[in-house]
Amino acid sequence: MTPEALILLADGFEEIEAVTSIDILRRAGVRVVVAGIGSKVVTGSHAIRITADLLLEDYVGTPDAVVLPGGMPGSANLRDSDAVRQVLRRADAAGKIIAAICAAPAVVLAATGLVSDKTVTCYPGFEKQLGPDTRFSTDSVVQDGRLITSRGPGTAMEFALRLARALAGDESARRVAEAVLHRT
Amino acid sequence: MTPEALILLADGFEEIEAVTSIDILRRAGVRVVVAGIGSKVVTGSHAIRITADLLLEDYVGTPDAVVLPGGMPGSANLRDSDAVRQVLRRADAAGKIIAAICAAPAVVLAATGLVSDKTVTCYPGFEKQLGPDTRFSTDSVVQDGRLITSRGPGTAMEFALRLARALAGDESARRVAEAVLHRT
Repeated sequence: MTPEALILLADGFEEIEAVTSIDILRRAGVRVVVAGIGSKVVTGSHAIRITADLLLEDYVGTPDAVVLPGGMPGSANLRDSDAVRQVLRRADAAGKIIAAICAAPAVVLAATGLVSDKTVTCYPGFEKQLGPDTRFSTDSVVQDGRLITSRGPGTAMEFALRLARALAGDESARRVAEAVLHRT
Repeated sequence: MTPEALILLADGFEEIEAVTSIDILRRAGVRVVVAGIGSKVVTGSHAIRITADLLLEDYVGTPDAVVLPGGMPGSANLRDSDAVRQVLRRADAAGKIIAAICAAPAVVLAATGLVSDKTVTCYPGFEKQLGPDTRFSTDSVVQDGRLITSRGPGTAMEFALRLARALAGDESARRVAEAVLHRT
């Protein structure tokens, strides 16, 4: 079975974080579905317009991972969407991977109650929005069970490769890292 | 005067390379014009669709830099466009910056005669397409006068920050590197 990742894009998403995740996961052989929130054409925080594969409300199924890029107001727009919070809760209840980077771990996941008693990282400063029962790490990528979090555009490649490893395996992630000339 | 960079996207472009360049340069205060070749909606080599700001044929003016993402067949599509070769030759004649990454230095710039007696880098293997009067380096980013070249998705951040430095200055590039959590 080909693993499937659902990446959620709302207006104001951080483009490097979103595109690096999609690109690296597709290189690793993961089926990536890019879902737009509110519109199929979404505009990033640096005015780059991307056409999603579908609207989130048209997505059927349970993905093996839900991936949230950061950026503001993109993360706030994700948090304010009932459909986003529902898909996150369904994925969590089904034991699937939840991955978020930059502002998203604090702004989206903390508000949805998905980081209680977990260790996470996020963009510097946003850790203040984590609840008292969430442990904060300054590592570039933090994996706590099925929860993968990361810090910002400069850690997006490492975040995407960690996700590729979790979804497609070590060998696939290693091959992609080599092909894109990632330096560890 | 705000510096202006013209980024050229043809179907089959490498998404991480294109988006990292646009995002980082906009963060640095550079005016970035994203020009589509043949269509305003262009599809990358990993099926990500981006809407350009305009068609290249509608671009007026001389940019301070022309930036070419790599990817195949994106680079071949750039090379095969008369409009692309013209804008590159005009920028070169006007003493502007020309920047290319991955397949593009070899596939586009070598074919347009813009790397004679220059030192460049490119994606591993493509150096065979450089002419005998072009020197090849394996550095992640190579700057030879007004020509800036780089290797692949894993070096895109470093490439974009070098371009930011050339167009917007050291201080601006340093500030952006810090904001995106780039690790040197």
